Amino acid sequence: MLSLPMGYPILMKERPMPGGVALARRQLRSLAANEVLVRISRAAICGTDLHIIGWNAWAAKSYKPPFALGHEFSGIVIDRGNEVHDIKPGDKVAAETHLPCGHCSQCAADRGHTCLNLRVFSRLDCGAFAEYAIVPSELLRVLPADLHHKYACLMEPLGIGVRAVRESQARSGQLLVVGCGPIGLLAIAAAKATGTTRIIATDLSHDRLRLAQSIGADTLIDPSEDDANEQLMSLRPNAGGVDAAIDTSGNQAGIASALSAVRPGGTLLLAGLPNGDIGLDLSRHVILREIAVRGIYGRHLRTTWQDTIDLLPALIPALDRIVTHEFPLHEYEAAFDIATSGQAGKVQFVINDD
Amino acid sequence: MLSLPMGYPILMKERPMPGGVALARRQLRSLAANEVLVRISRAAICGTDLHIIGWNAWAAKSYKPPFALGHEFSGIVIDRGNEVHDIKPGDKVAAETHLPCGHCSQCAADRGHTCLNLRVFSRLDCGAFAEYAIVPSELLRVLPADLHHKYACLMEPLGIGVRAVRESQARSGQLLVVGCGPIGLLAIAAAKATGTTRIIATDLSHDRLRLAQSIGADTLIDPSEDDANEQLMSLRPNAGGVDAAIDTSGNQAGIASALSAVRPGGTLLLAGLPNGDIGLDLSRHVILREIAVRGIYGRHLRTTWQDTIDLLPALIPALDRIVTHEFPLHEYEAAFDIATSGQAGKVQFVINDD
Amino acid sequence: MLSLPMGYPILMKERPMPGGVALARRQLRSLAANEVLVRISRAAICGTDLHIIGWNAWAAKSYKPPFALGHEFSGIVIDRGNEVHDIKPGDKVAAETHLPCGHCSQCAADRGHTCLNLRVFSRLDCGAFAEYAIVPSELLRVLPADLHHKYACLMEPLGIGVRAVRESQARSGQLLVVGCGPIGLLAIAAAKATGTTRIIATDLSHDRLRLAQSIGADTLIDPSEDDANEQLMSLRPNAGGVDAAIDTSGNQAGIASALSAVRPGGTLLLAGLPNGDIGLDLSRHVILREIAVRGIYGRHLRTTWQDTIDLLPALIPALDRIVTHEFPLHEYEAAFDIATSGQAGKVQFVINDD
Amino acid sequence: MLSLPMGYPILMKERPMPGGVALARRQLRSLAANEVLVRISRAAICGTDLHIIGWNAWAAKSYKPPFALGHEFSGIVIDRGNEVHDIKPGDKVAAETHLPCGHCSQCAADRGHTCLNLRVFSRLDCGAFAEYAIVPSELLRVLPADLHHKYACLMEPLGIGVRAVRESQARSGQLLVVGCGPIGLLAIAAAKATGTTRIIATDLSHDRLRLAQSIGADTLIDPSEDDANEQLMSLRPNAGGVDAAIDTSGNQAGIASALSAVRPGGTLLLAGLPNGDIGLDLSRHVILREIAVRGIYGRHLRTTWQDTIDLLPALIPALDRIVTHEFPLHEYEAAFDIATSGQAGKVQFVINDD
Repeated sequence: MLSLPMGYPILMKERPMPGGVALARRQLRSLAANEVLVRISRAAICGTDLHIIGWNAWAAKSYKPPFALGHEFSGIVIDRGNEVHDIKPGDKVAAETHLPCGHCSQCAADRGHTCLNLRVFSRLDCGAFAEYAIVPSELLRVLPADLHHKYACLMEPLGIGVRAVRESQARSGQLLVVGCGPIGLLAIAAAKATGTTRIIATDLSHDRLRLAQSIGADTLIDPSEDDANEQLMSLRPNAGGVDAAIDTSGNQAGIASALSAVRPGGTLLLAGLPNGDIGLDLSRHVILREIAVRGIYGRHLRTTWQDTIDLLPALIPALDRIVTHEFPLHEYEAAFDIATSGQAGKVQFVINDD
Repeated sequence: MLSLPMGYPILMKERPMPGGVALARRQLRSLAANEVLVRISRAAICGTDLHIIGWNAWAAKSYKPPFALGHEFSGIVIDRGNEVHDIKPGDKVAAETHLPCGHCSQCAADRGHTCLNLRVFSRLDCGAFAEYAIVPSELLRVLPADLHHKYACLMEPLGIGVRAVRESQARSGQLLVVGCGPIGLLAIAAAKATGTTRIIATDLSHDRLRLAQSIGADTLIDPSEDDANEQLMSLRPNAGGVDAAIDTSGNQAGIASALSAVRPGGTLLLAGLPNGDIGLDLSRHVILREIAVRGIYGRHLRTTWQDTIDLLPALIPALDRIVTHEFPLHEYEAAFDIATSGQAGKVQFVINDD
Repeated sequence: MLSLPMGYPILMKERPMPGGVALARRQLRSLAANEVLVRISRAAICGTDLHIIGWNAWAAKSYKPPFALGHEFSGIVIDRGNEVHDIKPGDKVAAETHLPCGHCSQCAADRGHTCLNLRVFSRLDCGAFAEYAIVPSELLRVLPADLHHKYACLMEPLGIGVRAVRESQARSGQLLVVGCGPIGLLAIAAAKATGTTRIIATDLSHDRLRLAQSIGADTLIDPSEDDANEQLMSLRPNAGGVDAAIDTSGNQAGIASALSAVRPGGTLLLAGLPNGDIGLDLSRHVILREIAVRGIYGRHLRTTWQDTIDLLPALIPALDRIVTHEFPLHEYEAAFDIATSGQAGKVQFVINDD
Repeated sequence: MLSLPMGYPILMKERPMPGGVALARRQLRSLAANEVLVRISRAAICGTDLHIIGWNAWAAKSYKPPFALGHEFSGIVIDRGNEVHDIKPGDKVAAETHLPCGHCSQCAADRGHTCLNLRVFSRLDCGAFAEYAIVPSELLRVLPADLHHKYACLMEPLGIGVRAVRESQARSGQLLVVGCGPIGLLAIAAAKATGTTRIIATDLSHDRLRLAQSIGADTLIDPSEDDANEQLMSLRPNAGGVDAAIDTSGNQAGIASALSAVRPGGTLLLAGLPNGDIGLDLSRHVILREIAVRGIYGRHLRTTWQDTIDLLPALIPALDRIVTHEFPLHEYEAAFDIATSGQAGKVQFVINDD
């Protein structure tokens, strides 16, 4: 068993207020039978982390400090409990964040990601903004040894992007992506790699639009411009709209404009969480034009991971561009600032150089 | 060519006001090359007809009297234009109501029912509440000669019910049907015939609930009762809800309760047209619980008809119950009254006794 | 822990020869952590059991006596190992027969039934032709307490029938079932309950054809009759054949005739295991007519069970007819004789009267 | 109307023997109401043409000289009959080769490509190895004006490649392509463009294998090598095989090896026409391993064309490599020689330089 007399650094949300974050040291505890000790190589900032840093209403309602931060990571297995057989020391791993019960009707329907008794990584007290984490073995996915941690650390959010593109059923047609934050960018990369003929991207940030363009977006629209709606409505006028849209904005205007821009029989895929009810003109779009509205919450726990791993080779150049900033862990304030700015792609902590 | 010196009776909407309907006589005109003359055996009252009779805002905006009423019918072919080859005098026919252009991108995608240049029967000046109608041959579907007109006349709305059940993907699981008007009842019949294990029906009318029960609904809920929502929420608590729901109510409360009652990964199928925007908690249901929201507008122009014809033998006893009232054409006022009451199943005019 | 000083009766294949079967007594052993002790109520004879009784080449190659016989059963839980939580004493259970490893690529793809390291019930030394069996908890499925064991005991083969019908994609069209042994009969029952409009059944035994008719087959064909092929070819001449076929015969003539009888774009579903290569005219049928050929090996380990349970209420009258013979365990010779005759439906042992 | 006093050159199969081909001159006739006059820009040699040139048993049985040769082409519309509205002079067009009746059950099921009364281009007496062709308007597809004829002329066989990849359901997994003739190469290009992670290609010709590699094949296997079968069997041993295979060889050895190389639950897609029955171990592969065997005959008449047009931009560099030889029409002997050699990619005639 690894000995760390001084413990290891871990970033904690300590106080229920905006900010209120500090680097602490934690002692290693012994492993339960199904647990794995991982030395974290990289960890990335997710939108959820920013809600917690900003301590908005949702965060204040959902969490009770102190607790450990961070859930997107990759690392190297150091040790394992005595019932763990399919993962071994030295393996390169990333982590799924949804832990299903295995017994409910959703689990029985191969839908563990919407398990009725779902537990999530961020409630397991094993934050990823740290040098080590003790993780239930069921959450870990072994990755190719030669995959750089920069990409390995993207697997979890990339899975959302890959699945969003698959479920949008855009095939080789035209796809609108509303919002070019990390999930939108990862979806654009996945769409490009799977043959989407034309990708239209929208964002308020021109930096992000340029980034979208560099990884494959063909048409860029700033929704704050006067004629933004005309531009959206004019996409493929002969076809009645684009084949599919993916919303990552989660807001009323973005979702309503995406729904209007999709052709009859197309799909609106929701990947950004709105606050409160969203008003939709169901008659006009969902019934008379038969547009399907679907959402995704997480990855299919095994099949999306395999799909994402399979698609990785074609995605590397885009992933390189999507990671716009890298910080050591102790520069967490700068990292959170840039991630909050709305101008960045993905922001990663480089923690161990494996 | 048939000679009708006195013309034939046809029910016209004559004045832009509630009611404003009268039986007129119309002369037969000669057939265009692709047209078919049909002697109508039965015709049925659809919800759209009631909007027109009641002359609500939608009707006032959409129609300009005088015009012919009625679009659900079956009949016997009497004559045909010289380019019509696949339909012949003596054939028993029912009519599709959507006429696609054949050239737009929707038509090219085998989605003619959402054709970008769609024309509809009720705008073709060939109303079905009449003794004869001249119909474009593409709209007619030949039915088995021994199929009673009572059932043949139900094919068009029945197609909606059959397709709603298919698209709901309820399979042999549990299905909630919100609203037991004709479309809801036809969907219940189709669900029962395809092996749905438990059908839950809601309606304000206890007559309609009893009718629903007689054709296969297992659980009845009156949404005006105090504990209606508790009843809905308690459907399959261990599974997180029913497998699918079909809304035929088109109203905010019905749609929202249906969405809440569906299990994660299930489908909410919309078959009733709401007025204006409907507010949906997309985060909670469509994203976090991954419920798909889909609508249906009409039938697939050929495949749904075949599917419906195939399923007919198993549906006859239910269809018998769903047709609750039959009137001769001249008793149209009584027919509209009972259809408007919200207590009836399907109301048919028996026009010719073939 | 249950005490059985005299042990319990269990039917063993004792010698490598036709017959070679005897009732033995076995002592109860203690349960491993994940095991469940089941008192068997009913067990049924499967085709595999008959191969073993007859000791054909396949059996001689695959098994090494002595070993316990029987794998289709239902029963009542008596005791459980200390890691079993989702099943408890008193539960009514039936058993899946395929035990997946949980870690291979097939398991990760939600395809545990074709696990690369699959273990099967009949190799676990816990035969079902016995008063008790010790079963890995993962194999057991809890059924409704009020479901009669006659039906509960059919769940495993019924799952094949239900899945065959689903995968055949016959929907409400026309379905040919080649062979009316138990699997063919169960498929016919499932097809009828899910709205198949016309079921054509073939078998050499007129008893079995009559049984097929009693549970829903509309057209009966004896393939030994001179014009059998003409009859098959004449099924829906205007449509180019039936919508789908399920073969349970596993022989060249049956499969080839089924393939010829399916319309373009239809499906041939294989549920009977052929010996050696089968010659197919791939150009004519699979390519030029685009018929899909698919097989099924077992049930999807959870979803088919749920689908089958959901469909059960509609199947009970048919299942009643399909169980044509019931024997006490000690009359096993008579039971095997009638099952081997090719005239029976399902033959069950009634072991405990719960 | 275009006046060609001397007529136009057209390549005819004149005598029922190997070779027996000559350039003739034909007079322009007037257009029927639904016909279009096309000036052909490029035409390409298909495997069917080579059977006719070689006059094998199939050709001798199927055709009766004299008749016009060639069916893959692109060109420019010169004139149209008076009922043609959606195509106009100046349009760049390619041609579908399957003309459905529009009335049979296959047509009604949106499956016109397997129409029960299908007519094919090569029986319409309007060969594409000519300067002009008179074509039924339903066969023509308008393409972007700026698409080079080199690519436009590939649309018909490319549609097979695109559809084969879609139907193989390889997604971003691993795909085996058996045979690197034009269809195999086009399938490889389509697979690469839609994100297939690893493509394995087999062919006897090392030239073709190198060509396959240049457009995206990752692993090359010569089936005549001693360990070819071991190489195939060793593809993804941990996964039980590749995710899907496309056979373009049409021979027993190729199909059997492809079937063996696919993982459980995968798909074998057949795109090459075998002569006579092919023996398949259905028990081992189709049933126990649940591999689906499907064939494709042509394109979906509209949706595959749209899918292929959408995917074109990503395919241009590969298409450039796949067209290995270009000839003027009068050098047809050299063109047929190189196409027959089994070493070439696609061989095209450059007829008019539009």
